[in-house]
Amino acid sequence: MTRVHCAQLAPRVADLPHNRELSATAVRGAAARGADVIVLPELVTSGYRLNSTAEARSVAIDPDDPLLTEWGRAAPHSVVVGGFCERGPDGHLYNSAAVLDHGELIAVYRKTHLWDEEKLLFTPGDTPPPVLKTSHGRIGVLICYDLEFPELTRKLALHGADLLAVPTNWPLLPRPAGERAPEVVIAMAAARVNHLAIACCDRTGTERGTHWTEGTAIIDQQGRVSAETDTTDTACTDLDLHASRDKRLTPHADLFADRRPELY
Amino acid sequence: MTRVHCAQLAPRVADLPHNRELSATAVRGAAARGADVIVLPELVTSGYRLNSTAEARSVAIDPDDPLLTEWGRAAPHSVVVGGFCERGPDGHLYNSAAVLDHGELIAVYRKTHLWDEEKLLFTPGDTPPPVLKTSHGRIGVLICYDLEFPELTRKLALHGADLLAVPTNWPLLPRPAGERAPEVVIAMAAARVNHLAIACCDRTGTERGTHWTEGTAIIDQQGRVSAETDTTDTACTDLDLHASRDKRLTPHADLFADRRPELY
Repeated sequence: MTRVHCAQLAPRVADLPHNRELSATAVRGAAARGADVIVLPELVTSGYRLNSTAEARSVAIDPDDPLLTEWGRAAPHSVVVGGFCERGPDGHLYNSAAVLDHGELIAVYRKTHLWDEEKLLFTPGDTPPPVLKTSHGRIGVLICYDLEFPELTRKLALHGADLLAVPTNWPLLPRPAGERAPEVVIAMAAARVNHLAIACCDRTGTERGTHWTEGTAIIDQQGRVSAETDTTDTACTDLDLHASRDKRLTPHADLFADRRPELY
Repeated sequence: MTRVHCAQLAPRVADLPHNRELSATAVRGAAARGADVIVLPELVTSGYRLNSTAEARSVAIDPDDPLLTEWGRAAPHSVVVGGFCERGPDGHLYNSAAVLDHGELIAVYRKTHLWDEEKLLFTPGDTPPPVLKTSHGRIGVLICYDLEFPELTRKLALHGADLLAVPTNWPLLPRPAGERAPEVVIAMAAARVNHLAIACCDRTGTERGTHWTEGTAIIDQQGRVSAETDTTDTACTDLDLHASRDKRLTPHADLFADRRPELY
């Protein structure tokens, strides 16, 4: 079993030292609870509601920044996936996710589907999201709105992902009473039609008037929410990630073999 | 506004005369309530749990069968989409859906993704599902398990579907209390990520030991369930189908323009 842990944090906008401490403490706490895979929110180092390129630039960091190294030190036996505001060597800003395994940075993914006004601050990534062979399974990485493109979740599934780790910042939308947040519904459907697990780590804390869904959810291969946040804004559950590799639903039904790519 | 109506019926397995009367009566009733688009279950003419090819053949009909003509006569100003067991001119059996508009048969779609033991009875269709320009909007047609292939719902959305009409037979699966059926979750997600409406018409009535989800749901472009069945096993709601043609979520976000096909 693989212990998957999401830390739904409340970063302070444009406060790098605070967010550094906040995120490293959360990673350390997760590791102490035996987490194998730890997911942090999108842009946890910078906050989300950055009000200008100048402000975003002031909290942008390089992938070799000590802040990310600290995540690795805080959980030396885990995989850590967390969002950060990246200063690219080309001078552009990216909404990125860092992936660390056993303390080492193994990948940086730059969000390819920028949501709404993010387009005014960030450059979209031009490389598809990776599926990484880690010490805790094959992990695909998406960021927030990326998850709403079913071509992309399907692609990562076909590339062998056992688990999608998805740092998110979901602004709160009105929804009917008793219903799950639409983003969670989309994740549940993606998990079920692809028979893989998905860990979405949302954020909390009001920021410049924006409220968040606080919809953190770890979803199993049946598309069921296996864990939501507890009173400490933590979601944690043990999943059999190897189950993601068998796409059979019955002796005569197989989610991948039943595809008809020639018709799509 | 377009009045969309689903009749969640209980056909009798291998009883063509009974199912003819049952379905025609339902279509007539829907028309009397002003339905513009009427959706019937999958295989409503034959029932689902056919126990041999011989039995399936005994209730298979041609697309010009009077049974289908009768649906058209019963709702001469509506679009009717319903499932039937088709005897193809090639001698094969198909799990098909007939589409009638203003009393005329305008299309037959043969299910391309056969579920489980359907593979032992039916030949899969080799033509992609259509998006039909009808007198009540552009309607895409899928049958049951087809809906669980997100490539396919996306394709119909990109081809301009305002509404997907989906005859289904959903065998009842266990699910956590308070959760929607997984098939409905998949439909909600497909509606939301594609900003189109989806009308799933399930069936009712136990059949040879199989219980059904009775999960009929008409879903709007936000991915919200707009209507479920009432005490008469009918779901009916008015939808603005033209809204499906605008894929913008905000001034800076557009579900189709934001796609990155070069990355998929």
